[in-house]
Amino acid sequence: MISKSDIKYFSSLNQKKYRKKENRFLAEGLKIVLEGIKSQYECEVILVTYEFADKQSDVIKYLKKENLAIELINFHDFQKISDTKTPQGIIGVFKYEALNFSINKNHSNLLVYLDNISDPGNLGTIIRTCHWFDIKEILISPNSSEFLNPKVVRASMGSIFHLKIYDDIEINVLKEIKSSGYKIICSDLRGENIFNFKFPERFVITLSSESAGPSEEIISLADKSVTIPKFGNAESLNVSVAAGIILSRIKS
Amino acid sequence: MISKSDIKYFSSLNQKKYRKKENRFLAEGLKIVLEGIKSQYECEVILVTYEFADKQSDVIKYLKKENLAIELINFHDFQKISDTKTPQGIIGVFKYEALNFSINKNHSNLLVYLDNISDPGNLGTIIRTCHWFDIKEILISPNSSEFLNPKVVRASMGSIFHLKIYDDIEINVLKEIKSSGYKIICSDLRGENIFNFKFPERFVITLSSESAGPSEEIISLADKSVTIPKFGNAESLNVSVAAGIILSRIKS
Repeated sequence: MISKSDIKYFSSLNQKKYRKKENRFLAEGLKIVLEGIKSQYECEVILVTYEFADKQSDVIKYLKKENLAIELINFHDFQKISDTKTPQGIIGVFKYEALNFSINKNHSNLLVYLDNISDPGNLGTIIRTCHWFDIKEILISPNSSEFLNPKVVRASMGSIFHLKIYDDIEINVLKEIKSSGYKIICSDLRGENIFNFKFPERFVITLSSESAGPSEEIISLADKSVTIPKFGNAESLNVSVAAGIILSRIKS
Repeated sequence: MISKSDIKYFSSLNQKKYRKKENRFLAEGLKIVLEGIKSQYECEVILVTYEFADKQSDVIKYLKKENLAIELINFHDFQKISDTKTPQGIIGVFKYEALNFSINKNHSNLLVYLDNISDPGNLGTIIRTCHWFDIKEILISPNSSEFLNPKVVRASMGSIFHLKIYDDIEINVLKEIKSSGYKIICSDLRGENIFNFKFPERFVITLSSESAGPSEEIISLADKSVTIPKFGNAESLNVSVAAGIILSRIKS
């Protein structure tokens, strides 16, 4: 049976401060909860509304078979925890430990650095796209949205559970990565045409918000810049669309 | 001076029914209003809050120089019309006439057909991406979001003003287009690898929602299907990301 203070505790995980303090985060929606369960993340408890349990008895049976803790909860209380307008009625509470990026460990030949991606929907969509293109490791700048933000988790469609994601990565870490032999390739409006570009063997591709563009620090650190050529008159591409085009180009 | 019934009238344009009836739509945000003014659409009036007029006197000066009608409005009333959580304080009211697609007129060699794109953010982002890649004509299925929905207009960053967009296009029109000599290329999870695909000279590319995929009717109408190969384990790509990859591939 769930108490008032439990509700308050779960609801607090909508805030970064409490996620960091508790090392827990929320994943909302059936598809996303199922992705979490399949992953290496430990699920602490799954909160479901009575209505959900009623309608989705097969899901409940499956969760029980997997020995997962389930708490039934009324819709009114559920809404206090939910981050969505029309909740499906299922939220998983997962444990996490922040990953530390150490240059002395083995890493993929291709790393993605996300710089100043403040929109959670864009950040989640980029993570999902990275997952599609089999990127194993993503580094995220301190001025981006946090990847455990419920909106990011949802927009990623659960892909956040399956990749190594390093949060709060300062430019100094990028410098270390460069010193260890990676090229830094920056996506920018003033770079070489990506469709003729030959990518090096080991590199970091940096993706920045379309409105601000890459920071001066990233530009001066970059070995090369690449651009998606513009054919029409749109001022810019949405950054998650640009990310998809760039990653598809790297992989094709 | 703006009346209560004016407020009600402008606010009603957030609904499709009234947009169709009045042949008017709303474009919110400075950047988007400016795109509208530069375009061939006729601007009926621009609504600005007192705060906006105060802070952005250069913008007001410019709008007056362009002989545009401006109405000042208090923030409380503005919120009734605005579709955003944190309004900038500027909305343009634009006139439009629905375009009829006639196969007997001249059309581009490349047409984009958007099928069942119900999320307004995705629809707007795809229109913006089409603008970037110099697509001139977009056809939209009846079960997609309407392109004059304020959320679509915003996500397009004003690109809706610069392309020929045909709404409510039934599958029968696609059949006519096919009969007139266009190939129908359908993007689908089970098609040919797009990175090896040679596109024909005149064709329609169809883009469908990632959850439902293309309808049976489109699949049976299509001459060929194309797929973005999957490298990792993500279940799907966001449709606006997929659209970007496909259009970049067509153009590169």
